[in-house]
Amino acid sequence: MTYDLIIVGGGPAGITAGIYAARKKLKTLLITKEWGGQITKANDIENWPGIKTISGPDLMENMLEHLKKFEIELKDQTEVIDLNKENNEFAIRDNQDNEYKSKTVIIATGKVPRLLNIPGEEEYKGKGVSLCSTCDAPMFKDKEVAVIGGGNAGFSTAYDLTKYATKVYILEFMEEMCGDPLMKEKIEKTGKAKFITNVAVKEIKGDDFVKSLIYENRDTGEDKEIEVQGVFIAIGMTPKAGFAENLVEFDDIGEIKIDRNNKTKTEGLFAAGDITDVKYEQIVIACGEGAKATLAVDEYLSKK
Amino acid sequence: MTYDLIIVGGGPAGITAGIYAARKKLKTLLITKEWGGQITKANDIENWPGIKTISGPDLMENMLEHLKKFEIELKDQTEVIDLNKENNEFAIRDNQDNEYKSKTVIIATGKVPRLLNIPGEEEYKGKGVSLCSTCDAPMFKDKEVAVIGGGNAGFSTAYDLTKYATKVYILEFMEEMCGDPLMKEKIEKTGKAKFITNVAVKEIKGDDFVKSLIYENRDTGEDKEIEVQGVFIAIGMTPKAGFAENLVEFDDIGEIKIDRNNKTKTEGLFAAGDITDVKYEQIVIACGEGAKATLAVDEYLSKK
Repeated sequence: MTYDLIIVGGGPAGITAGIYAARKKLKTLLITKEWGGQITKANDIENWPGIKTISGPDLMENMLEHLKKFEIELKDQTEVIDLNKENNEFAIRDNQDNEYKSKTVIIATGKVPRLLNIPGEEEYKGKGVSLCSTCDAPMFKDKEVAVIGGGNAGFSTAYDLTKYATKVYILEFMEEMCGDPLMKEKIEKTGKAKFITNVAVKEIKGDDFVKSLIYENRDTGEDKEIEVQGVFIAIGMTPKAGFAENLVEFDDIGEIKIDRNNKTKTEGLFAAGDITDVKYEQIVIACGEGAKATLAVDEYLSKK
Repeated sequence: MTYDLIIVGGGPAGITAGIYAARKKLKTLLITKEWGGQITKANDIENWPGIKTISGPDLMENMLEHLKKFEIELKDQTEVIDLNKENNEFAIRDNQDNEYKSKTVIIATGKVPRLLNIPGEEEYKGKGVSLCSTCDAPMFKDKEVAVIGGGNAGFSTAYDLTKYATKVYILEFMEEMCGDPLMKEKIEKTGKAKFITNVAVKEIKGDDFVKSLIYENRDTGEDKEIEVQGVFIAIGMTPKAGFAENLVEFDDIGEIKIDRNNKTKTEGLFAAGDITDVKYEQIVIACGEGAKATLAVDEYLSKK
């Protein structure tokens, strides 16, 4: 049997692609390791249009229930390990040694944020530790916060936070900040920032909520503790699309390059959401991209 | 006073842009003639991720309430009639002779569908008359329907409908269908389609719901009535961005050309949603584009 479409990934992009595929009556299979992706890590989502506040897991549950209303084959707890194209058909293999055939594929496997792997990081996620300032900055009004990472992601996180927090520490492992100097100037001008270089963050401490952070001066080996109510980790994201390496082109941070209609370099192979080189990563953007990818698939199939 | 951002348009793209702008603490004004745009014309929306069914006006109301929660200046029942750029600032004039200054502008004025202006068209909107098959096709399962318009929009509407309806009439005013011949073949193969050319549709009739459609044979002048439960109008859309003509480039159907990050050809001027040349027009896509546009504005301003 050959599917019209296989969607790889069950986050906002993959689920929306699935809803649109089912409504277009495409014979579709959605394969995912887990439901929700990054969204399940979010505590209070306040920028999903039409809902003032919702938890990540709740929004994900709503989307998944919506998807399940339709006729579509779903396979979770499954990882795709190989994708190839032979004789104009895609062959997908999963980690349970199943093989599937499909006329088209949408890759929507998202990214995983790089983490510090230090004590307190996991424990205080959603309790002061955040991975997204666009999502969470407003919750740190009149608080003191630390941003881990002195690259552009860290700078943009810090700048977001200066609008709400009273003090923003920016901590960088290397001897120099590596983000855009103009942006650094802008952050400095707010009078709220303190830049600290050449330090290794060692621990996040708190009670119910984050209270402080400990870092080591890499020159002297001395530890220092600063009081903060928030810690934003901005040391990069890792895309997860190694299985498709023969068929897509990656940009320099491993995202899949797509055109405006979600096409990769291989005919019939599309991508959507955080895994792509679309610049901004937000739930509503990923959903829009998922819809767009399926409409592009539908158009592609209708011309076959 | 100079705003950071003026958003023109209060549909899904404009509202989402506004939510994101307020959260980024941009000094923002949103100007719109009316709230919701196309969305208010939709009866049952079944492809907004996370909500199985919602009426267009209800979804719009949810979004507007969400927007109003934030600090943002809103001005409705107002039309922008002129947009210019002088000394690195945008000057906007509205139909009440007010002038505003802003560092950046997002145009999100959407499109209005072209209509037939015949009896029954307005009366049966949402009661059998539809403007969007991606939205409404599943509601016409086992029904007979007519598509008005034999161009590519009509063909793609008809093809969507063949998956649900038992019979699909495609009516074209000209002597020949003008859509893609390959697509026509594909529709013909379903065995459900009847193509009728050289006709003028004159009236849509029904009781609570559409029951039939009357068209005139333009050769003979004879009227004919066909029984249908649905009428899909697909004779094009008109973009509404004449006020910006000095500062943007239009494609051949009057949509504003943007790059992948919602930039127009004028620095500081962005666009989002149906008014742009992004190919597919859906609520969730417009919302994603609105978010993307504001994030691009924020990045632009942060580098100033």
